[in-house]
This record gives sequence, C-alpha cells and structure tokens, in this order.
Amino acid sequence: MSVVYTNVRRADPAVLEALARLGVATIHEAQGRTGLLGPALRPIYAGAHIAGSAVTVSLPPADNWMIHVAVEQCQAGDVLVVAPTSYSDAGYFGELLASSLAARGVLGLVIDAGVRDVRDLTSMRFPVWSKVIHAQGTVKETLGSVNVPVVCAGGLVNPGDVVVADDDGVCIVPRREAAAVLKASEAREAKEAKTRERLKKGELGLDIYDMREKLAQRGLTYRKGE
Amino acid sequence: MSVVYTNVRRADPAVLEALARLGVATIHEAQGRTGLLGPALRPIYAGAHIAGSAVTVSLPPADNWMIHVAVEQCQAGDVLVVAPTSYSDAGYFGELLASSLAARGVLGLVIDAGVRDVRDLTSMRFPVWSKVIHAQGTVKETLGSVNVPVVCAGGLVNPGDVVVADDDGVCIVPRREAAAVLKASEAREAKEAKTRERLKKGELGLDIYDMREKLAQRGLTYRKGE
Amino acid sequence: MSVVYTNVRRADPAVLEALARLGVATIHEAQGRTGLLGPALRPIYAGAHIAGSAVTVSLPPADNWMIHVAVEQCQAGDVLVVAPTSYSDAGYFGELLASSLAARGVLGLVIDAGVRDVRDLTSMRFPVWSKVIHAQGTVKETLGSVNVPVVCAGGLVNPGDVVVADDDGVCIVPRREAAAVLKASEAREAKEAKTRERLKKGELGLDIYDMREKLAQRGLTYRKGE
Amino acid sequence: MSVVYTNVRRADPAVLEALARLGVATIHEAQGRTGLLGPALRPIYAGAHIAGSAVTVSLPPADNWMIHVAVEQCQAGDVLVVAPTSYSDAGYFGELLASSLAARGVLGLVIDAGVRDVRDLTSMRFPVWSKVIHAQGTVKETLGSVNVPVVCAGGLVNPGDVVVADDDGVCIVPRREAAAVLKASEAREAKEAKTRERLKKGELGLDIYDMREKLAQRGLTYRKGE
Amino acid sequence: MSVVYTNVRRADPAVLEALARLGVATIHEAQGRTGLLGPALRPIYAGAHIAGSAVTVSLPPADNWMIHVAVEQCQAGDVLVVAPTSYSDAGYFGELLASSLAARGVLGLVIDAGVRDVRDLTSMRFPVWSKVIHAQGTVKETLGSVNVPVVCAGGLVNPGDVVVADDDGVCIVPRREAAAVLKASEAREAKEAKTRERLKKGELGLDIYDMREKLAQRGLTYRKGE
Amino acid sequence: MSVVYTNVRRADPAVLEALARLGVATIHEAQGRTGLLGPALRPIYAGAHIAGSAVTVSLPPADNWMIHVAVEQCQAGDVLVVAPTSYSDAGYFGELLASSLAARGVLGLVIDAGVRDVRDLTSMRFPVWSKVIHAQGTVKETLGSVNVPVVCAGGLVNPGDVVVADDDGVCIVPRREAAAVLKASEAREAKEAKTRERLKKGELGLDIYDMREKLAQRGLTYRKGE
Repeated sequence: MSVVYTNVRRADPAVLEALARLGVATIHEAQGRTGLLGPALRPIYAGAHIAGSAVTVSLPPADNWMIHVAVEQCQAGDVLVVAPTSYSDAGYFGELLASSLAARGVLGLVIDAGVRDVRDLTSMRFPVWSKVIHAQGTVKETLGSVNVPVVCAGGLVNPGDVVVADDDGVCIVPRREAAAVLKASEAREAKEAKTRERLKKGELGLDIYDMREKLAQRGLTYRKGE
Repeated sequence: MSVVYTNVRRADPAVLEALARLGVATIHEAQGRTGLLGPALRPIYAGAHIAGSAVTVSLPPADNWMIHVAVEQCQAGDVLVVAPTSYSDAGYFGELLASSLAARGVLGLVIDAGVRDVRDLTSMRFPVWSKVIHAQGTVKETLGSVNVPVVCAGGLVNPGDVVVADDDGVCIVPRREAAAVLKASEAREAKEAKTRERLKKGELGLDIYDMREKLAQRGLTYRKGE
Repeated sequence: MSVVYTNVRRADPAVLEALARLGVATIHEAQGRTGLLGPALRPIYAGAHIAGSAVTVSLPPADNWMIHVAVEQCQAGDVLVVAPTSYSDAGYFGELLASSLAARGVLGLVIDAGVRDVRDLTSMRFPVWSKVIHAQGTVKETLGSVNVPVVCAGGLVNPGDVVVADDDGVCIVPRREAAAVLKASEAREAKEAKTRERLKKGELGLDIYDMREKLAQRGLTYRKGE
Repeated sequence: MSVVYTNVRRADPAVLEALARLGVATIHEAQGRTGLLGPALRPIYAGAHIAGSAVTVSLPPADNWMIHVAVEQCQAGDVLVVAPTSYSDAGYFGELLASSLAARGVLGLVIDAGVRDVRDLTSMRFPVWSKVIHAQGTVKETLGSVNVPVVCAGGLVNPGDVVVADDDGVCIVPRREAAAVLKASEAREAKEAKTRERLKKGELGLDIYDMREKLAQRGLTYRKGE
Repeated sequence: MSVVYTNVRRADPAVLEALARLGVATIHEAQGRTGLLGPALRPIYAGAHIAGSAVTVSLPPADNWMIHVAVEQCQAGDVLVVAPTSYSDAGYFGELLASSLAARGVLGLVIDAGVRDVRDLTSMRFPVWSKVIHAQGTVKETLGSVNVPVVCAGGLVNPGDVVVADDDGVCIVPRREAAAVLKASEAREAKEAKTRERLKKGELGLDIYDMREKLAQRGLTYRKGE
Repeated sequence: MSVVYTNVRRADPAVLEALARLGVATIHEAQGRTGLLGPALRPIYAGAHIAGSAVTVSLPPADNWMIHVAVEQCQAGDVLVVAPTSYSDAGYFGELLASSLAARGVLGLVIDAGVRDVRDLTSMRFPVWSKVIHAQGTVKETLGSVNVPVVCAGGLVNPGDVVVADDDGVCIVPRREAAAVLKASEAREAKEAKTRERLKKGELGLDIYDMREKLAQRGLTYRKGE
C-alpha cells in the first residue's frame, strides 16, 4: 500500500514560468473559482511567489520519513506538497530538508501541517506555505506514499499538477488545463487593467459593471439616513 | 428588506483627526473598556493606524455585490465595515475595490471575512483588518443592506460611528460620544506618560498604584522559594 | 492559596547565554523532543531569540493584578511566564508593564493569553510570545500566585526553569538539566552542520541516513508513474 | 458605568406563548433571515423549546457576580441572556442559580460562555443554551450591567426582546416586531404544511417551486454520467 | 461549468447491504486506513448506521439551490453528499428536503456545513452527518454541480462511491473496491471476534499480539515507581 | 527515555468511593478551583460518573502502542489517562482495548485525542472522556512512557492522582490531598444543600450571600428602564 510513483509527468516549463507572473486570485478566478487550497495555509514570509509541478506526499501524523523519500523524486521546478493522513501540527520540515530540496532546484513546500527553523528558511529564501509553525519533532517509523493524489487543506492535488502560491495562498491547476488556464488568466489580467484605470479615475463599479438596473429589479431601495 | 441609507451623519473631522493619533488600547480603556471588535480581525500589514466614519455593509456569505453598492456611499475619511450574515471566509475584497475606495478618499476596510490581493493592497498602502486572507472568489447574486447597524467580529457598529484601527485591532466609538472619548483618551495618555517615566526609572507599579495594602488584605502571602 | 515565592533558584548565567545561541527546534530535539509549549504561542515580531529563567504567574482570566506583583520578583535575565487559570484572550500586558520589566533587565514575556500595544513593544524591542493580540483591558480584582508550577500553552513550567524562545516558538528546559541539554544541543548542532554540507552538495538524506534498506524491509515499493 | 435597568418592558404573553409553538428555523426565516445567535450555542439536553422575554447581562470574563444581581430582575416568563465582555469558557452557572431562577418562573438561560452541573440541570429540566460545558468556577469581584443591549454569540439582544430557543439554536425577535413575526411565522408554517404533503407524495421541489426554467436560464446543463 | 451528471453508476446493492452491517472503523481499517471523512462531521442523533451510493453536490456557501436539483438524481439506496466550495456553516437542509429525499428512498445526508430542524429529522429518523446545527437560512441564487468529485470534510468523494456512516463518522469506499473491501472487513471482524474473547478473559494484548520482544528491542524499560 | 513505572501508589479506595459520589464542579471548587482538565474533553455518553487512580500514558501522535503496554499496569479502580506529545485527533482506542481494560476492572478512559467504536463502548458502559470521536486508525511503531507526569487537556496529571469525571468534565485531585479534598467537598455539598432550600423558596442570592452592600460600594446603580 506504500508506493512511490516515479517518472510523473510535469507541466510545460514555459507555462509554469508564465503562471508564476500571475497571482493566485487571478488564476483561481480564471479557472472558474476552483483549485484553491484552504486559507489555513499561510506563507512563512511575505513576498514569495512560485509556480511549479507538484510532487505529492501522503504520510502519517508526526512522521516525516516519506519526505526524505520524496526528495529523491524532485526535480528543478517542482513544489513539494505534503498531506498527513490525519490532523497533525508537528514540525515535519526544517532547514536541513530545505537545503536538500534547494540543492535540487525545488521551488518551495506546501504542507498541511507544521514547519520549523522558519528564521533559517526565511534567510535562505526557501518559501513554505504551512498550517502552523511548530518546532515539534517527528519520527521516521511509518511508511506513506509519494506521487499519489492527496487532499491538502481541503483541496485535491494530483502529482504533476501546477502549484501556484503567493501571499494570498495556494492554487492548484490541473496539469492538462494549465495552458488554457494561463490564457484565461492573462485575459482576465488584461481586462482588469482597464477596469483599474477607470476605477482610479473615480468611476464606480456600479456603472462600469452596469449593475444599477439589476439591483433595482432585485428590489434594492434607497432611503435617506436618520 | 434590502436598503441603502444615504446621507448618514459622520463624526466631526477634527475629532477623527485627533483620535487617529491615539491607540486602540487607550481609546478602548478611555470609553470604559467597551467598543472593541474581536481579536480575530488582524491587519494585513503592520503599522497602519486610522480613524474614520463607518459606512456599514450587511451582506450574504461569499457574495460581495453590496460592497459595489456601498462604494458609492463612501466619502473621504470613511472606513468601510463589512459583516456577512453568517460565517464566511471568502475573499470579498481585493485590489480593484481598494482602488475604487482609495479614489474616493476612503481610509481602509474592516471586514469580518476574507480579503485577497494582499501584496497589492500592501503596496498601495490600503489598510485592511480582516479575519482571514483568502483568494476565494465571491458572487454577485444576492442583496444586502448599506448603512444599517451590523455586528462585526462580535461588536456592534452603527453607520457613522468612529472606527479606530491600529496594530492592536479595531475599536468602535459611538459618534455622539466621540468628543468625550477623545478627551478621556488624551487624559489617559497624559497620565500614562508620567507613569511611564517612573516605571522606566525602576519604580514598581505596586508602589505607584499603591497596591500593597489591598493585596495583603485580600490575603496575598509571601514565602521563600524552595 | 495565593502565594508569591521569592528567592527562586535560577539557571547558571553561562548556560543561559550559551542556550540563547541555539534554536528552539535544536534544544527541543536534544532533550528528547520534550519541553515545547504549544504552537498557539507566536512572537509579536520576527527575529527575537532569548534564553532566561522563568518567573511564573498563575492568574485569573482577564485580571492582570498578579503581573504587577510578579514584576518585583523579576531579575535581570528572567523571562516572565503567564498562564490564566481558564481560557482568556484578554490583553493582559502592554507597553507600561514592558517598560517596568525592561527597567529590571527582564528579557521578554511568554503569555498564554493576549497582549496589546504591540507597535510600541516592537519599537522598544521587548519580545513577547502570546496566543493573541488583543486590546481588551483587564481588571485588578482577584489574586493568583507567583513562582508556582504552571501549565502554559499545554506545557509544564516550573519557576527557575530555562525558557528559550525564538521564531519557532517556546521551549522549556528544566533548570537542573540545563547544562546537560546545552551539551546535547551543541553536539546535535555540530552533527547537523556536517549533514548540511553534504545535503547542499546534493547528497540525499536517504543515503546519508542509510534509510534505503529499512524502507524496503517495511515494504516500500517503487512504480513508474502513469 | 455599571447599571441595572429595572422595569424593562416585556413582550405580550399571548404572543410569547404562540411563538413557543414555532421552531427557531421558521421564525428566523419569517423575519427575513435575521436574529439568529451563532451556532456555537448548543442546548445542554435535547427537546427543550422556549420563548420568553430577555433579561440581559453584560459581565466580565469568569466573573458571575452580575448573574446574582440579574436574578432579582427576572419575572415568570423571562429568559436570562448572559454575555461576557471578552471570550470566556468558564462555568458561570450551575444548579443553585437554576434553582433560584426556576423559583421565579424563569424559562431558561442563554449564555455565550460555559455552564456546569449539567446533569442536575437536565434532571430539573432547566434548559440552557451555552457555548461549552465547563466546571471551571468563577469569582464575584467585578461589576457589569443588567438589561443593557448585549452582543451574544454574534447577535444583538436588547432587554425585553423575545428569545426563542429549541434544538436548532436561539433566535431573537425584537419586542415591537413580535406580533408581526408571529403572524408571518404562522403563515410560513401553513404554507410549508402543504408543500410537505406534496413532497411526501414524491413531487419534486424543482416542480413545486417552479425552478426548472430559471436553472436553465442560468446555464445549468445535464450530461450523462461516465 | 455547472453540470448535473445523470445515470451515475451505483455500487452493488448486495455489497451495500453487507457493508451496512459493518462499522466505519472496521471498514476504514480494512481498506488500509483510508477513506475517512474528517471528525467534524457528527451525526445529529445517535444510533444511525447506513451504507449507500453517493450522489454528490458541489455548491456555493449559504446557497442550497443545487440540493433541490440533486434530489431528482437520487434513487432508493443513495446517500446525498454535499460540499460547499468555501467554508459555510449555514443551515442548508431541513425537514422539507428530508421528506422529499425520504420519499425517494434516500438513506441519509452527509454535509460539510449546517442543517436545521434537527428535532423533526430525528423524529422521522432521517440521519444526517453534519459539521454544525444551524437554523441560518440559505438562498437559491447561484449554480453548482451534481455528481462531480467533491472534497467533503477533507476527504475525496466520487459520485457512486459507497458512503458508510455510523456513530463514529463517515467512511468512503471507492465503488470498484467495494466488494474487496467488504471481504477484507468481514475477515477483520472475524479475527477481532476471537481476540475479543481472549481479551475478555483477561489475556493481554501484549501477549496476544506478541509485542514484548519488539518493545524491548526498541528500548522500553521498566522501573519501579517512586 | 521510554519508561514504564510499575508499582505506582494509588489513592485510598474508601476515599475514591466517597469522591465518586461528588460532582466534578464541587470537587474542583473545594480544592480551590484547581485541577480541572480542559472542556474539550467530553463524555461519549451522558450519565457516567467515576473516581479512580490515574495510570498515565505519554505517547506519540496517532500511535497507540503504549496503550497496550499500559493495560498491564492497570488494576481494578484505575482510570487510564492518555496524552499525545503533540496534537492528535486520531482514534487511539476502541472496543477491543475497552474489553481488555474492563476485564481488569478499569473504570474508564480520559484521552486528549480521539476514540472510536463509541456505540459499542456505550453499550458496554465503558465511559470515555475524549476530545473527539474519530475512526482514524493508529500505528504501533514508536515508544512512549507509562506512569510519568503528563499534561492532558491543559492540566497536569501525576500517576496515582485521583481522576474524577462526570457530565461536567474531568477533575484531578493530587493523591496526597485526596482525603482533605473529600472533606472540603462534603462540607461544601452540605452548605449548598441549605442554600438550595432557601433559593427554592424564592430567597435571593443577593440576600443569602449578603451582596447588596458590597455591590453598592463598588458603584452599582439602579435605573428605571426606558
């Protein structure tokens, strides 16, 4: 039952590079408001922004053995995604594992549990999105699996999916949809740029989005205060 | 049932300006330890400090339509206060709405739900106090109300009330009491300045506040350790 | 039942000084993965790192009277550890108390409740590890005890124990074990330095820690993806 | 600042009696989906169902002195509503206070905090809706107020408002709207009775509520599975 | 993007019937400790025990329109599984919808949100596993999908999967593995029956499971107390 | 570091028997409002009430091996107290372990984690106070210790301490203080019986406890409502 899948397909590097220039909110909207992992995942420092291919790890609570196994499966451009099989806030990951991943060109870690050595991780600019910061050590006793589908912070992640993460959180783009989502995201970005200019000049969203009639139809009424 | 109240009374700008120089903790104490919104509301970046008049929004979970309606009711010096009718952690608000509010001179947002685009909001220095950071998009389908009394993070906010917010959280001062609270806050501040000097020189609060006798009467005893 | 123990034994200053150069994660591991307080305790600003002797305070919810009593028991090199007798998120502690403690050379505060004035505390570099930031004021009506054993954020703290705190959280080292834990921590640190070099060069933890055989014995299998 | 308001107006007893036959969900809907207190409030035993006039208590965390003061203000048909000024899970209320309230004809307690003696309270059929069950004792040291507006579990309660509570939770009906809400609730109930009969016979809500066209207009599509 | 899949394959009725006699804990273990939904899902009354085929619903927060759509897709022996696209504690479901589902032979509801009318649901013995009980009403404004894969309380549910639920929670068995899991579960049950007899007679697990040597090898030591 | 202490001293059986007739709230008050474990611990069924000697277990998250070790250390009249070294909601304990403990005369289980098979445990009347009900299985890979001091749900438990548990929660009485606490509890009970009679007759706590003067001194004022 404990399996490591090797040779997992990754997304197109050009698409990844382009997605890394787009925000999580934009991408999430562009793919129909899907793919977000839960807001409990927070970056350990502000300003990181990555897009890479998911190497997934399913492992037991408070046992980080499988992360060591997963490192070997990682390539440059990957993002490690770690999900315990039941709730854990233990500190699965620190500066040594980050050094190992960084040496392979891994872009960052997404973990539905805890991390530690956050000062060192910040110094070395190895970004982590985690549920908690906790120095609590883990054991290396029980197997799990690498590159199987996992549910991480309430969202489904398949190995090879695109992981985009920034200060707003983490969004998963299915590998096969990555090019289409990129296109839709760029279109959204372009459209928003125009709206932004109008809003900055003081035009109202009520007018730009043509909402007044629909609001009135639904029954919105205006009254003078006091 | 969905109403927008216009022409709501605001607090005196001079009082607002003076309150903006005082901390949330001081003001909360000065008005008898009342008016604080719950600690789940946290600033998205450190260092912002505002005092303005509340424009309130009551709206459905994961539906931000009414924020677009509320923008039109905002004036320079206002603070938007948004409260869903049941729990929501969706991302109601991002950089486009902030651009629109900033164009009108709105000072910031207090929201008992989620926001997104926090990196952009930070760059443009548009402060937000929110329960969560979440890229999750919202719909525009269901009406709510603007400038009605709302319960936000466990505290009552009436339209036109003064909203003071800093790194400690958010405090509401009823509009009619604003001048009196300002006076009491400044008095408190002045008194604390004197105490601070004595404490820095090493005097003890036990002596400055004359606590020793009362402690003894209540039965406090001292014993040598070990 | 309300007692202040005076003359509590502190740890050896040389040991404290040496422990302050070691991280919470290292020390926690070196003493057999014990002593961590819960991850709900977070520093109010990043980068603080202290090691001192615990002066403990057991007090009622939303009543900070005993902190004033405890100040007098503090010496240079101490860390104040405050635990309410039932859950409280009130703001027990702010800039005035910090000024008083700083005047005595106290290194910081660990509190299983709330603090306020966090901007001032940050400016004066008085570090606090707390559960929450909350301006909510407290009263001075009910007694508690100073320098008794307390459970703080799920961990036991005895007066005089060593408190080490950094960006990863807070770890307690029993006073009598401090020298031994220091030694074990330094040994661990030295060993990790070597491992770090190998990992940075691209060697795998699987090989460095000799895990492959044990993993195979437990039944780990590798399969080709898709 | 600590005030007890006496002689507070209550709702019409006939209206209360009629409301007590209607469920919280029905009443909440009938008054436009407003008035619900948060779902953290749960009954300590199943099956209680009350409607009475609110006597409100605002008090400090872990201090139940004001409940003793409030008892005197209670009449037959009242419901005590207790809200601490900051978060508390202490056990403010037990069998002795319940005996006292029961002697006055009080119908039950709603408390945004903890209760104890739940076995006794259950035996004597004194219903309580609370956030938690906790034996933790409280002190009697600090004042609060009786019959002031309070925010309880996120909802506003004015003294004299109608409190309806059943296994679904607690709903507040403003005193002046009680008769109108009763009427609307009974109308809703009658209408639902007819719908229920049709549903039981196997008719679909899609048809009863005439939803098919609207769904299609919004873009709902049907596809054959697998 | 809003799709209803019809004609979804169900599990073999004979397998379902047999699984309904086995506990969630047994089945979860028998399929390799996988498939459990999170413990936040609790039954609204004790003693219900069902196994059926999942009809899944993905819908917006606080909007239950798609449940009405899903009813039509349900057959006798199904279990409705409802998951909002972001956190919601609203009361999506009550006695009217239950009457409609019961009329079609649906066995129960699993919902990662709130329900209401729990007293009625209990009387009619329509079991629900939900995150919360909340009377908060929902709207019917925004589309979702029926019979798509959903993440519910942290677990993945595909349409047609087997849903087993009892007082311990909810376990999902992939449709194609249902027969194999049934066999493994019955084997486990049989084995446990023998162990139970030995334990009841006072034999120790240490001996039955032959643990003593392994414990000693790992370094467990025994010392006399005090 | 993994030790099992044998031959731990228990409390006097006569004292245990007498304490089992007193409620947790009474005992907690009688020993100065100390000793309560946190309210997250809830009984799996209503009505159980036990007092026994603690056999304590410190173990890893999601690993129940040490419970098997602990069973052998249990005697008739004991209560097993289990605390993971970091947060876990896994289901450590079910009907087989309960059968084993029941065969030895153990009175019940207190666990700062999850249990499963709650229907069976209820049928066999083996009471458990746990944080959660969860079928999630555990492994048997990592050692812990038996009969060491543990922090359970925020409270300290030493082996041999008295554990009293009822519908209000769990209270720990230090073994050496058990007789004194019993005496104080019975005195409190007797006193409350008298107060109860007076309250039932309609006397007010304000008068029985002589509070009016003290309230007035503190500044309580009465005003006529509206």
